[in-house]
Amino acid sequence: MPRVTVTRRVRFNAAHRVHNPELSEAENTRLFGKCNNPNWHGHNYTLDVSVEGDVDQKTGYVWDLSQLKKIVEREIVDIVDHKNFNLDVPFMKGIIPTSENIITAFWKILAPQVNPGKLSRLVLWETENNYVEYTGK
Amino acid sequence: MPRVTVTRRVRFNAAHRVHNPELSEAENTRLFGKCNNPNWHGHNYTLDVSVEGDVDQKTGYVWDLSQLKKIVEREIVDIVDHKNFNLDVPFMKGIIPTSENIITAFWKILAPQVNPGKLSRLVLWETENNYVEYTGK
Amino acid sequence: MPRVTVTRRVRFNAAHRVHNPELSEAENTRLFGKCNNPNWHGHNYTLDVSVEGDVDQKTGYVWDLSQLKKIVEREIVDIVDHKNFNLDVPFMKGIIPTSENIITAFWKILAPQVNPGKLSRLVLWETENNYVEYTGK
Amino acid sequence: MPRVTVTRRVRFNAAHRVHNPELSEAENTRLFGKCNNPNWHGHNYTLDVSVEGDVDQKTGYVWDLSQLKKIVEREIVDIVDHKNFNLDVPFMKGIIPTSENIITAFWKILAPQVNPGKLSRLVLWETENNYVEYTGK
Amino acid sequence: MPRVTVTRRVRFNAAHRVHNPELSEAENTRLFGKCNNPNWHGHNYTLDVSVEGDVDQKTGYVWDLSQLKKIVEREIVDIVDHKNFNLDVPFMKGIIPTSENIITAFWKILAPQVNPGKLSRLVLWETENNYVEYTGK
Amino acid sequence: MPRVTVTRRVRFNAAHRVHNPELSEAENTRLFGKCNNPNWHGHNYTLDVSVEGDVDQKTGYVWDLSQLKKIVEREIVDIVDHKNFNLDVPFMKGIIPTSENIITAFWKILAPQVNPGKLSRLVLWETENNYVEYTGK
Repeated sequence: MPRVTVTRRVRFNAAHRVHNPELSEAENTRLFGKCNNPNWHGHNYTLDVSVEGDVDQKTGYVWDLSQLKKIVEREIVDIVDHKNFNLDVPFMKGIIPTSENIITAFWKILAPQVNPGKLSRLVLWETENNYVEYTGK
Repeated sequence: MPRVTVTRRVRFNAAHRVHNPELSEAENTRLFGKCNNPNWHGHNYTLDVSVEGDVDQKTGYVWDLSQLKKIVEREIVDIVDHKNFNLDVPFMKGIIPTSENIITAFWKILAPQVNPGKLSRLVLWETENNYVEYTGK
Repeated sequence: MPRVTVTRRVRFNAAHRVHNPELSEAENTRLFGKCNNPNWHGHNYTLDVSVEGDVDQKTGYVWDLSQLKKIVEREIVDIVDHKNFNLDVPFMKGIIPTSENIITAFWKILAPQVNPGKLSRLVLWETENNYVEYTGK
Repeated sequence: MPRVTVTRRVRFNAAHRVHNPELSEAENTRLFGKCNNPNWHGHNYTLDVSVEGDVDQKTGYVWDLSQLKKIVEREIVDIVDHKNFNLDVPFMKGIIPTSENIITAFWKILAPQVNPGKLSRLVLWETENNYVEYTGK
Repeated sequence: MPRVTVTRRVRFNAAHRVHNPELSEAENTRLFGKCNNPNWHGHNYTLDVSVEGDVDQKTGYVWDLSQLKKIVEREIVDIVDHKNFNLDVPFMKGIIPTSENIITAFWKILAPQVNPGKLSRLVLWETENNYVEYTGK
Repeated sequence: MPRVTVTRRVRFNAAHRVHNPELSEAENTRLFGKCNNPNWHGHNYTLDVSVEGDVDQKTGYVWDLSQLKKIVEREIVDIVDHKNFNLDVPFMKGIIPTSENIITAFWKILAPQVNPGKLSRLVLWETENNYVEYTGK
């Protein structure tokens, strides 16, 4: 029974400010530079959601990607698209919205929902030159 | 003497809110939908700046694209990158920051600076599925 | 009043066979090669729909691209996506489904629906190495 | 002796229908939706073939990618390009042509042909938003 | 009879040095910077060849793109791919190999060969951030 | 403490000749074909540098990618961009400049500089159809 990884890509855009409220303004500026702009900036994000599992003999699918898409849209895209990560997104409250923290927050939401198969990897592109990956470890 | 069009692509990211302050909140919501989010959202923008002119026999260039790049970075990218179009950008004050209004504002700034050749086209991508073009007409 | 061109990109996939039923099989093979496979082949198509018009002062838009998208999805994408151009698409009946013929058929459908502004260009990518453009002439 | 993974990307387009003939039409429609269209649909597929091995000191290559390309074109691309996965491809007979089943079928064909090095990963893109990976497990 | 523009994209890679032998080394350095490196540098070029014409009723084609591809490969790609524009390419002898000069040289070669239709546009990408266009004027 | 992989993409272009000086011309031609052109050819390379590490609670970063970018530009891009791998690059002296040998040379330079986190993967694209990966093994 071969184990295959299937991936669905989704896109959204959002504003954010990379800022740690426990640090001084000077320290925030030193650490985060122009990403600390108090008036926000934003990105077109691309998210790849990968699920690994056995290929079902009846369907030839690991998991119907249209089902996976529905879950990712309901749980992630509808919450963050055209939103502000610092102000509008309940699951990011109190968390600095770096790509690293966003991707691990996404993982916590998506991992329990994947069935059949298991969530095996998330890749989040912030710009076309920067991306982060997480495999749940 | 052949006339060639040369293009330099630059990228920046910014936050914005599509909002007309002269209209009611209800009217803004009806017209602009999720793009009217008061907490902002943002994009990775791509801008293509095209200059048309004769090919110089001494250099083989219409215009040295590294010169063009310097001007576009100084006049546009340094002003808008990691910024908020509504709050941070002097030349967008009082203007609804749609892609249409952004591109015509860019044109006004860049057209007088192009020399030799003439500014012949701007293309601004807001997402990978939306773009606007302006040729100065 | 500046005139700007705004573009919305949509995607669909479809099967087709490039075949002229008025010609012999031998002639079809000679003209169309592997694109004439009687068992069909298919593509992921990309369509750019461009509308040119004045920028509306109230909205900053030439035309709300979400409106344009709705029309293109209703009139084109819902009819051709996951379909066979030769068998399933009413407006292609009796027409050889080359990219040239597809794009002019799309134009006839979309041009009367564009308002405000005017439909100014369609670009249809059949593969990442082939595309066709039509401006209504 | 460093172990490097080298990848060659190839492209082809094909028609298919996601359909299990052992199930009723109603069940096929429920499971596969518009991918079950009896008149077929199609895609531009992208396939990445990766080989892992030691770097040969004489050539600086793990494996000459032009050799790998020749094999992939002969064994895969020439068989599936501009074809119908359900009707035209011998090695897919009796197999539902999902991306999962296509990629494992490709693996069985390519793995014995890779020499030197070993076939370490296949990635198959069906659309720009969907892809599957297989590493032989 | 609709007039459609059809485009075929080809790719090649080559070395070059942007250098005017009639100028001093100092002047070359001032004008061309790192593009003047005497030991060469190189690019993966992308070339879009566009032909405009009436759609033939028998074939549904403006011009069979596989014919156009054959001509572009024979006349351009086979001459410049994996070559040095300054040393290896007969039609660039004595010409500074800027993208502007390359594209007008390509035009002279291709324009007489296009039939039916007429060569309407060349676009040459030198990097993903720089491209030039020529329409024969 | 989640472990995330962060990646920065950089680009450069360079000339090279795939050639083993210890072999005859005939043997070089047989092994390397058109990549052995004595007058060089070149590429636009894309390099993805990935660092794996714990997410720092103070910054939300594994490692500030602008720091990583600075190091990669200083140690790699400034040395190879617009250069000839065979003639201009000290760390490639005596090494056949295949992508496999380039990527392992880059690894030796970058691995000791990554701190915090560890260099976990390099991916080097030579063309859009060829790439190599190395993870230090």
